[in-house]
Amino acid sequence: MEKVAIIGIGQTKFGEHWKYSLRDLMAEAGKKAVDDCGIAGKEIQAIYGGTMSAGRMIGQEHIGALIADAMGLTPIPSTRVENACASGGTALREAYLAVSGGHYDMVVAGGVEKMTDVYTDQASLALGGAADQEWEVFFGATFPSLYALIAKRHMYEYGTTEEQLARVAVKNHHNGALNPLAQFPFEVSIEQVMESPKVAEPLKLLDCSPITDGAAAVILANEETAKKIADTPVWINGSGQASDTLALHDRTNICTLNASVVAGKKAMKQAGVTPKQIDLAEVHDCFTIAEICAIEDLGFVKKGEGGKSMEDGMFDLNSSISINPSGGLKACGHPVGATGVKQAVEIAEHLRGEAGKRQVENVEIALTHNVGGSGASCVVHVFSRGGN
Amino acid sequence: MEKVAIIGIGQTKFGEHWKYSLRDLMAEAGKKAVDDCGIAGKEIQAIYGGTMSAGRMIGQEHIGALIADAMGLTPIPSTRVENACASGGTALREAYLAVSGGHYDMVVAGGVEKMTDVYTDQASLALGGAADQEWEVFFGATFPSLYALIAKRHMYEYGTTEEQLARVAVKNHHNGALNPLAQFPFEVSIEQVMESPKVAEPLKLLDCSPITDGAAAVILANEETAKKIADTPVWINGSGQASDTLALHDRTNICTLNASVVAGKKAMKQAGVTPKQIDLAEVHDCFTIAEICAIEDLGFVKKGEGGKSMEDGMFDLNSSISINPSGGLKACGHPVGATGVKQAVEIAEHLRGEAGKRQVENVEIALTHNVGGSGASCVVHVFSRGGN
Repeated sequence: MEKVAIIGIGQTKFGEHWKYSLRDLMAEAGKKAVDDCGIAGKEIQAIYGGTMSAGRMIGQEHIGALIADAMGLTPIPSTRVENACASGGTALREAYLAVSGGHYDMVVAGGVEKMTDVYTDQASLALGGAADQEWEVFFGATFPSLYALIAKRHMYEYGTTEEQLARVAVKNHHNGALNPLAQFPFEVSIEQVMESPKVAEPLKLLDCSPITDGAAAVILANEETAKKIADTPVWINGSGQASDTLALHDRTNICTLNASVVAGKKAMKQAGVTPKQIDLAEVHDCFTIAEICAIEDLGFVKKGEGGKSMEDGMFDLNSSISINPSGGLKACGHPVGATGVKQAVEIAEHLRGEAGKRQVENVEIALTHNVGGSGASCVVHVFSRGGN
Repeated sequence: MEKVAIIGIGQTKFGEHWKYSLRDLMAEAGKKAVDDCGIAGKEIQAIYGGTMSAGRMIGQEHIGALIADAMGLTPIPSTRVENACASGGTALREAYLAVSGGHYDMVVAGGVEKMTDVYTDQASLALGGAADQEWEVFFGATFPSLYALIAKRHMYEYGTTEEQLARVAVKNHHNGALNPLAQFPFEVSIEQVMESPKVAEPLKLLDCSPITDGAAAVILANEETAKKIADTPVWINGSGQASDTLALHDRTNICTLNASVVAGKKAMKQAGVTPKQIDLAEVHDCFTIAEICAIEDLGFVKKGEGGKSMEDGMFDLNSSISINPSGGLKACGHPVGATGVKQAVEIAEHLRGEAGKRQVENVEIALTHNVGGSGASCVVHVFSRGGN
C-alpha cells in the first residue's frame, strides 16, 4: 500500500447561501484546495464527490461529472459516492483507497450539499431518505424522532440527563464561535438549550444540527507526490468503514451504533493507535445524543459514561481529547455531503497549526468520525502530522 | 496490482416488477450471484452498489447500507456510487479498483433501479437529473430531446438515416428475443420502428430504451481467491473511466462522446488490445443513435460510418463484432443503476459459454461500455476468458 497524505484543503463558509448554487459552492472549495497546495488543476487525476440528496433537493444527480465540469477538470474520472450523511467521509475513503492502491498519484475528495433551495419540510423529507423509507419514514419517523428514541433509551439505561445533552451543544457552540466558517458562530448556554422549542422529546431545537449549504475539498497524494508538494503533509494512517441495519428496530441495542464501533476499531488498528492516543476528534454530532454515543462507541469513555464525562468538560477545547473543535455539525453546520470532508479539513488545519483561535495544542494524532442516517453507515479515519 | 476476476453473476428478470421493491430485486440478484459461485455470504468483504435516482423514485437514499442490510451482510463496508446511467459500470470499476489495489479479496458490485413506483413523467423528470438541471432540464429538455439533437446532427454531418437508426432496434430486439431475462423479448421490424409514435424527432418510441425495474450483481475476487473458487473466472483486463461537460451545448462536437473515446482507449490500452480484437461488446444504447455513436467512439468503425455498418449487419449476432447480445438497453431493458452491471453479467455468460440461444461463438475478448447522461460520464471494461 502507498502512504497517502492530505496536501491541500478548502472549505466554503457554511450557512444559507442564497446566491450560490451547488456547483458554485463545490468549485469554490475545490479552488481553495488547489490554491492551498499550489498545484495546477491538470495534475489531479480523479475526483470522488460526496453528496447525499441533490436529486431531491436541487433536481440534479450525476454530481461527479458536474464537479469535473464545474472545476474544468474533464475528462478525468469523477464519481459521486453516497452513504447518506456519511457521503463526505466515504468520498475521502474511496479517494484514499484509490491512491493507496496505486491507481492514482493525486486525487480530490470533495463533499457538497445545497439544502436551502427547497422548503424545510422538503429538506427534512429528503433527509428521511437516509433512514428506512419503507419501515420508518413511511410511518412518520423523521431524524429528530429516531435520535430521540436513542436519547430516551440512553437516559433510561444510563441515567444520562437532558442537561448533559445540552452540554454538547454548549461546548460545540463555544468552539464554533471561534470558527470563521461556522454557520452559527455564537455561544449558547445550558439554559438557552433547555428552553429552546421541543422538536422530538427529549431533543430540543438547540440539540439539533441545522439545514446548511456548503462544500469542502481535500487533495490527497501518494508519498512521493506529497513530499514534493507539501511542507506539512497530513498523513492518513487508518481508514475504517462499516454498515448496520437501516432501521433502528432491527438492532439489538439502539444505544450503540455498531457501525461506529467496527469502523473505529478498524481505523485505529490500521493506524496502530488506541483511543487514549487521540488528541482531537471531529465526530458526527447531528444531534447532541449522537456525540454522546460517538465518544462511547469510539472507546474514549465506557458505554454509559458519555453524558457525565461531557458534563465534566473532558471533551472541551484543549482538555483530554478536544472533540469537535470546528463547532461540529451543531454549530459549524451540516451540509450533509460536505460534513465528512469538512471534518478532514478541520483536523488538517490543527495538525498544520493553522486553526487560529480554536487551535488545539500539541496535536499529534487526530480522528474523524462520520455517520450515515441513524448509524447504518460509518466511516472513521485516523491522521497524524508529518514533516516533509 | 492484483489480477481481478468475476467469479459469480446474478440478474433478475428485467421488467415491471409491481410485486417487488428495490431491496427485493437487489437481494434476488445478490443471492443468485452468491449461489452461482457457491460461496458463503460472510466471505464477501465489501459492497459497491450503483443506483441513479432512488431518492426521487422511491424516496430512499443510503442504498449501500440498504443492500448490506437486505443481503444480511452487515457490518461490512457498503457504498453507493452514482454516475447517472453509468452508476452500474462505476460500481464495477470501484469494486475492481478496490480488489486490484489489494484492499479486499472478494467484493460484490451490484446495480439496481426501481423505476415503476412513480408515474412515467416523474421517472422522466428524475432521469433528467443525469443532464444539466440548470441549463438543460429547467428549460424543458428531456433525454429523448437531447439524444434527438445528437441524432439530427449525426444525420446532417454523415448522412445517417432514420432507417439505419431503426436497424439498431431491429438487431437488439432480435437478440433480446433470445434472452429469457429481457423486458421485451420479441422481434421488431424496420417498418414497426419507423411507424412507431414520434417521441423527439427523429427518435421514435422504438428508438428509445424503456422504463424498467431490475437488478444485477457480480462477485469479484483477486487471483488467488478466484482460482480457488471459480472453474471459469472471467478476468477484468482493463478499466477506463472519463468525464465530460454535463450540458451538450458546452461540447465542441456533439456527435462524439469524448468520455467514451477516452474511457475506451484507457481500458483497451490497459488490456493491451485494439478495437479489432473485441469479439463481443455490450454498449450503451439508451437510444438507437447512442449505439451508433458508441461503435464509432470505441473505434469499431470510423466516425460517420456507424449507420452504414449497422445497415450492413456488421454488428449482428456472430458477425464481425456481436454488439449487445443481451438485447441491450433497448430490448433487455434499462433499470438505470443495474445496466452497467448487467452488461458484465452478460459478457461473463458468453465468456463462460452459458449464454444459451444467444451464445456468441469463439469469444475471447469482450467489452462493456456504460454511459451516464448524454455522455458526461463513461465507464469501459475489457474482459477475457481464463481457465482456472
